[in-house]
Amino acid sequence: MVSFKNDYSEGALPVIMEALLKTNLEQTVGYGEDEYTTKGIETIKKAINFKDCYVRLLVGGTQTNLLTISHILRPYEAVIAADTGHISVHEAGAIEATGHKVIELATNGDGKINLDMIKKAYDIHKNDFHMVKPKMVYISNPTELGTLYTKEELINISNYCKEVGMYLYLDGARMASALASEKNDIELTDYPKYCDAFYIGGTKCGLLFGEALVITNKELAGGFFCSTKQKGATLAKGRLLGIQFAELFQGDRYYQVGKHSNEMAAMLKKGVLEAGYKLKADSYTNQQFFILPNRIIDEIGKKYRYEFWEKIDEETSAIRLVTSWATKEEDVKDFIEDLKNMK
Amino acid sequence: MVSFKNDYSEGALPVIMEALLKTNLEQTVGYGEDEYTTKGIETIKKAINFKDCYVRLLVGGTQTNLLTISHILRPYEAVIAADTGHISVHEAGAIEATGHKVIELATNGDGKINLDMIKKAYDIHKNDFHMVKPKMVYISNPTELGTLYTKEELINISNYCKEVGMYLYLDGARMASALASEKNDIELTDYPKYCDAFYIGGTKCGLLFGEALVITNKELAGGFFCSTKQKGATLAKGRLLGIQFAELFQGDRYYQVGKHSNEMAAMLKKGVLEAGYKLKADSYTNQQFFILPNRIIDEIGKKYRYEFWEKIDEETSAIRLVTSWATKEEDVKDFIEDLKNMK
Amino acid sequence: MVSFKNDYSEGALPVIMEALLKTNLEQTVGYGEDEYTTKGIETIKKAINFKDCYVRLLVGGTQTNLLTISHILRPYEAVIAADTGHISVHEAGAIEATGHKVIELATNGDGKINLDMIKKAYDIHKNDFHMVKPKMVYISNPTELGTLYTKEELINISNYCKEVGMYLYLDGARMASALASEKNDIELTDYPKYCDAFYIGGTKCGLLFGEALVITNKELAGGFFCSTKQKGATLAKGRLLGIQFAELFQGDRYYQVGKHSNEMAAMLKKGVLEAGYKLKADSYTNQQFFILPNRIIDEIGKKYRYEFWEKIDEETSAIRLVTSWATKEEDVKDFIEDLKNMK
Amino acid sequence: MVSFKNDYSEGALPVIMEALLKTNLEQTVGYGEDEYTTKGIETIKKAINFKDCYVRLLVGGTQTNLLTISHILRPYEAVIAADTGHISVHEAGAIEATGHKVIELATNGDGKINLDMIKKAYDIHKNDFHMVKPKMVYISNPTELGTLYTKEELINISNYCKEVGMYLYLDGARMASALASEKNDIELTDYPKYCDAFYIGGTKCGLLFGEALVITNKELAGGFFCSTKQKGATLAKGRLLGIQFAELFQGDRYYQVGKHSNEMAAMLKKGVLEAGYKLKADSYTNQQFFILPNRIIDEIGKKYRYEFWEKIDEETSAIRLVTSWATKEEDVKDFIEDLKNMK
Repeated sequence: MVSFKNDYSEGALPVIMEALLKTNLEQTVGYGEDEYTTKGIETIKKAINFKDCYVRLLVGGTQTNLLTISHILRPYEAVIAADTGHISVHEAGAIEATGHKVIELATNGDGKINLDMIKKAYDIHKNDFHMVKPKMVYISNPTELGTLYTKEELINISNYCKEVGMYLYLDGARMASALASEKNDIELTDYPKYCDAFYIGGTKCGLLFGEALVITNKELAGGFFCSTKQKGATLAKGRLLGIQFAELFQGDRYYQVGKHSNEMAAMLKKGVLEAGYKLKADSYTNQQFFILPNRIIDEIGKKYRYEFWEKIDEETSAIRLVTSWATKEEDVKDFIEDLKNMK
Repeated sequence: MVSFKNDYSEGALPVIMEALLKTNLEQTVGYGEDEYTTKGIETIKKAINFKDCYVRLLVGGTQTNLLTISHILRPYEAVIAADTGHISVHEAGAIEATGHKVIELATNGDGKINLDMIKKAYDIHKNDFHMVKPKMVYISNPTELGTLYTKEELINISNYCKEVGMYLYLDGARMASALASEKNDIELTDYPKYCDAFYIGGTKCGLLFGEALVITNKELAGGFFCSTKQKGATLAKGRLLGIQFAELFQGDRYYQVGKHSNEMAAMLKKGVLEAGYKLKADSYTNQQFFILPNRIIDEIGKKYRYEFWEKIDEETSAIRLVTSWATKEEDVKDFIEDLKNMK
Repeated sequence: MVSFKNDYSEGALPVIMEALLKTNLEQTVGYGEDEYTTKGIETIKKAINFKDCYVRLLVGGTQTNLLTISHILRPYEAVIAADTGHISVHEAGAIEATGHKVIELATNGDGKINLDMIKKAYDIHKNDFHMVKPKMVYISNPTELGTLYTKEELINISNYCKEVGMYLYLDGARMASALASEKNDIELTDYPKYCDAFYIGGTKCGLLFGEALVITNKELAGGFFCSTKQKGATLAKGRLLGIQFAELFQGDRYYQVGKHSNEMAAMLKKGVLEAGYKLKADSYTNQQFFILPNRIIDEIGKKYRYEFWEKIDEETSAIRLVTSWATKEEDVKDFIEDLKNMK
Repeated sequence: MVSFKNDYSEGALPVIMEALLKTNLEQTVGYGEDEYTTKGIETIKKAINFKDCYVRLLVGGTQTNLLTISHILRPYEAVIAADTGHISVHEAGAIEATGHKVIELATNGDGKINLDMIKKAYDIHKNDFHMVKPKMVYISNPTELGTLYTKEELINISNYCKEVGMYLYLDGARMASALASEKNDIELTDYPKYCDAFYIGGTKCGLLFGEALVITNKELAGGFFCSTKQKGATLAKGRLLGIQFAELFQGDRYYQVGKHSNEMAAMLKKGVLEAGYKLKADSYTNQQFFILPNRIIDEIGKKYRYEFWEKIDEETSAIRLVTSWATKEEDVKDFIEDLKNMK
C-alpha cells in the first residue's frame, strides 16, 4: 500500500545511511561531545550564516519543543500559539506537562497567527495578576496546515516580541519544504536574525531522526545541556545526529529535499483540483489538505494511506496527504488517475 | 586513541546496520504502530517467555527510567534506590524532575541494596504522614559497579515488595553482560516473574540506540503510550527500534554480546591485578573499577580513554574501564602491557 | 471608600470570630487530625446528606482546584473547562503547573458549557494518540459570570461523564449564593449525587478562609492527604478550618450568607438597569456585570471600588460589582443614587 | 491531656486575636495588596534593619519552602540540605514535586551541615554533566534537632556560597526560639546580610498561621507573586497575614515568644536529666529530644502528648517534647514530677 500519510514513512536519504555505515566502527565519546557532533553543528552554523549561537542536536520534534520551552520560561510564564499549532494539539499536552500553559489563539483557518491576535492576548494578560504571564510566541513554518509566514509577518512578530519582552521561537519541523516553496520569501539565514530560538527539522526532511535546535539569544542557552540530560533527551551515541546533519547540509541537499517534496505535493494538488474537489487550506508546501466525499475517502483508503483530518459535514471530510523526498512520481500519478476514476 | 571509556563508543553490530539498510526505503506507519515494531516486540516476548505483558521500545535509558517511574507512581509516591544507583546520581535529577523523590539507600560499597535496607527505609516512611510514600524499589542488574544480584536476592526483594504493596522495577541497561556473566544465576526468563517492570538494554549492548521496556504488571501499563508521547519519547520512525530489537534477539546474539564484553573485561581485570593494583569493586561483568596511583592514571590517559570514577586519597583514584561487543582483544592486550610497563 | 470589588473584602462573620476566640487557648493536635476538624467534616457531611465520602478542609480555592485535579488525573490526562472558567483564566496557570492541560471550550457569553460542547471536545480527542486524554469536566456554580446551571443541565453533564468515563468536578467557591438564588433548582444535597468531587466555598461566603472539598467517588480519594502535605496545603493549626466550617453550617447560616448577598446584588442590578445601563451577563447571584460608559466608570471609581472586567468598545467597558454577607444596604442605595446623578 | 507534641497546639497570642477582631469588618483589597500587608512588611523590614529586599507573607512553612526553592532554581538545579532537614524528610517530597532534587548530606547527629560537607558535595557534582547542578544551600536555624548555627558558621557557609555561585536560603520556622536562646550569637539583623533568602516563622511562634519570606537578593524576586498565585499560596484575605505580623513585631514581642518557649524547654531538659535520662541532641531551643525506656514513654503517653522521634534500640526510643509561648510552667513541673515518679 502506497502511503501519503506522512513524511516519515521511510528511513533516511541513502547518503545518510552510507555516512552512518562508514563511521559505524569508529570510537567516539558519547552524549554529543564528539567531533562528528561538532562538525554537524558547524555545518548548521555555516548554513544559517550565524556563528554566535548555541546549537544542540536532538532526536525529535516534541522533545525539542518541550525542552526549549521549559528551559527558557520561568515557572509562571506561558507560551502563545495558534490553536491549531503542534504544541497546542499534537503533542499530547507535552508543554503543559512541563508546567507551562499554552495560550491558544483562534486562527482564521490558515493555521497562522498574526500581530493583532498576539497583541490582544498579550494585552489581556499583561496586567492581571490572576493570569499567567505570556513570555514567548511559538509559530511554525510551514504551519500545521502547510501555509507559510511571509518575511514581513515574521519581522513584525519578531519586532513586537522584542518590544514587549517576549521571546520568539519557531518550529521548523518541515523547514526544507518551506525553504523550497515557490511562495517562500524567508531565507534560512533570516531565521537567526528574527528568532530567539528555532529548530531545523531533520526527521521529516530526510534523516532517520534529528532536529537541530538553534538558540540565537545566548542568554537563554545557559544550562541547556543539563535540561537535555534531565529530560532523557541526550542520545548516548550522540554522533549519530552529528553525522546525519553534516550530510544533510552538504551543498543544497536540504533544499532539494524540500523541492522534491513540494513538486510531488503540487502535482497532487493540481490533480485533486482537476478532479473537481476543493482544498481545505491553500498549501504550497508538502502537506496538502483536501475536502472529499466520505465514500471517495473510503475508496482511496483501499489503496493508499492518508491522514484523516476532520469531519466537514455529514457527507464530506478533510484528509491530509503528505509527500517527502522519497515520494515517487509514479505513485502520485497513479493516485490522481485512481481518484479521477472514482467519480 | 583506544577507548575503554564506555560501551557506547561505536555504532551498532554490523547485522543491525544491514537490517536498517535493507528496510530503508520501505514505507511503514509511524510512532511504533508498524509491523517491524510488532515483530521486535514479539521477539522480546518470546525471548523472555512471557506473553501477557506490555512491551514498549524506547530510545534511551534515562528516558525509559523517567517514563516508567513517573507513569507508575502517583504524585506523592517515591522510589527507593541505592545511593549509587543510576537514577540517584547519573540522570541529572530526571526522576525528581517528574516530581518524585528518590529515597537513596547507602550501600556497602558494592552498589547493591538488600532486603534489610529496603525494610528499614519502608518502615521509617510507612506511617509518617510528613513523609513521601515509598511505592517502588529500583534496582539495576548489573549495578552501577558491575556487581550482580543473585536470583535469591531478587526473589527476596520481589516477595517483600509484593508483601507491602510496592512495585519492583529493574534497570537492565547492561543486561547482556549480566546474562553472560560466570557469576550470574538469573535467566532472562526470570525477570518477568519477579519484576513488575524491567527493561532490556540495547544502547549498551550492540544497538545504535534502544531499550525494550517490559511491564509485566499490566495494571500499570494503561495509558503508557500517552505518557510516551507527552514526554517527547516517541520516535516518529518507530520501526528503527523494532528492526534493531528483532535482529538483536536472533539466536543467542544478545548473549554473545555480553559474553564477548565480559571476556574482554575479565582479561583487563586479570591484567590489572597481575600488575599489582587493586579493585574498587569485584565485578564479573563488562565494567571494571580499578584503584590506581594518579600518576599511572595520567600515563594511561595519554593513550587510552577511561572514565574517572572517584578520588580515593591524595595519591590514588578509582577509574572505570568498560568493554563492549566491539572491544578488540589486541587493544586489551596492549593496554595491559602498557600498564605493566608504566611501573 | 466603599468596596463592591469582591466578596472577600472583610474578615469573617462575627460568629466565626467568636468561635475562634473561644477556642484559642485549647490544645489540639495539628494538621487536621483534631476533634474540631472532625466536627467540621461531620457538619458538612450532614449538610450534604451524604456520609460515605471523603472531606478535606482546605485554605483557598486555587489550592483546592489544583490539588484535586492533579491528585485525580494521571499525568497524561486533561480537564475540560469553559474558556472563562476560573481554572482557565484566573489561577495563573495553576493547573498547567501541575502538568495538566485545560481544554478550554468557547462559551456562549454566559460562562457555561453544555453537553454538546463537551461531547464535541471529547470526540475530537478520544481516538487521537497525539492528543491529551480528556478525563475530567470542570464546571463552577455559580459560574465566573454569576450564572447558574440548572439541575437538568447538571444531571445531563453528569450522566455523559459517567457514560464515557470522565469525572465531574464542581467548583463551589460561591455556592452559598447559588443555593440562595431565586433561579436555583439544585439543592446542596444534589451535588454529591451528581459530582465525583466538588467543593463548598467558605472564603467568599463568610469565613476568614476555607473551602470544604468533598470527594464522593471514594476511589479518587486514596492518598489525598499525602498530596495535600506535598503541595504545602496542610494548615498546621488545621482546627481553624474545622471550627469555622462547623459554625458556618449551623442552622441555615450558609444559606443566609447567600441570601443577603443576592438581595444586595439584585438591588444593585435593579438600580443600574433603572439608570439606563445594560447587563454584560444576566446574573441572579452575588456577582453583577454591567456595561457602562468609561467616563461613568471613572466617576464611580472616585468613591467605590469595583473590578474592571473587559473593554467592550472604545467608549464603554464592563465592570463587575460583587456583594457579600457584609454588604450594607445603605451602601448599595448610595451607589445607585450616585450612579443616577452621574448622568 | 497536656500537649508537648509541638508548638502549634494552640491558636494565637491573645493580642493577635484582638487585632484580627478589631479589624474584622473593615474593607480592604485582596491578595496582599492592602495597607495592613504593607504595614506588616514594613514592620518586618524595620525589624531586620534591611530596606532593600522583597518580603512576601505566606501561610505555612512547607508552602514557603517549596515556593522559594522552585521559584529561584532553574529546572535542572538542586538544593543541598541536611539529611535530617525539614525539606529532606518532613515535607512529603514537596521540593521534588516541584522538580528539584534535594542533595541530602549525612550530618553528625546534630542536624547541622558544615562547610566541609557542602564543599565535598559541590565538588562531586560541579563538573559531571550526568548530575544535577547544586545551586542552593538550605539550612534551618534552629535545626530540626533544636541545635543552632553559630554566626561564624553562617558566615562561612554564606561566603562559600557566594564564592561558587550558590544561593543560601535559611528556614526560620522557629526563629524566635533561636533568637532568644542563651547559645545564640546571630542577631535578626544578621540574616539579611548573609542569606539570599530566609523566612521568619510565625505559625510556630505565636500566630494563627504565617511566615514572612525575605528575599534579599532581589534578582531572585522577579515574578515571585506570580509563582505564589500559581501554587495556590495567595490568601484572598491577605491582610490576615499583615495584621498578624505587624502585631508580632511590636516591641520585643517576637523575642519574648522565644524566651518563654526556651525557658519552659530548659526546665524540661533539666528535669529529665535530673531524672537520670539522656539527651538525643543537646538543644538550647524549644525542641528537646530525650532518650527514654519504652515503658516510660508509654507511661508518659497516658497523660501527655509527645512526638515519637525514633527507635534507638529494642528497649529505648527518642521522643521530642516541644514548648511554646503558651506552655504553662505548672504543666512542665507536673510533667517532671510525674516522670520522676515513673521510675
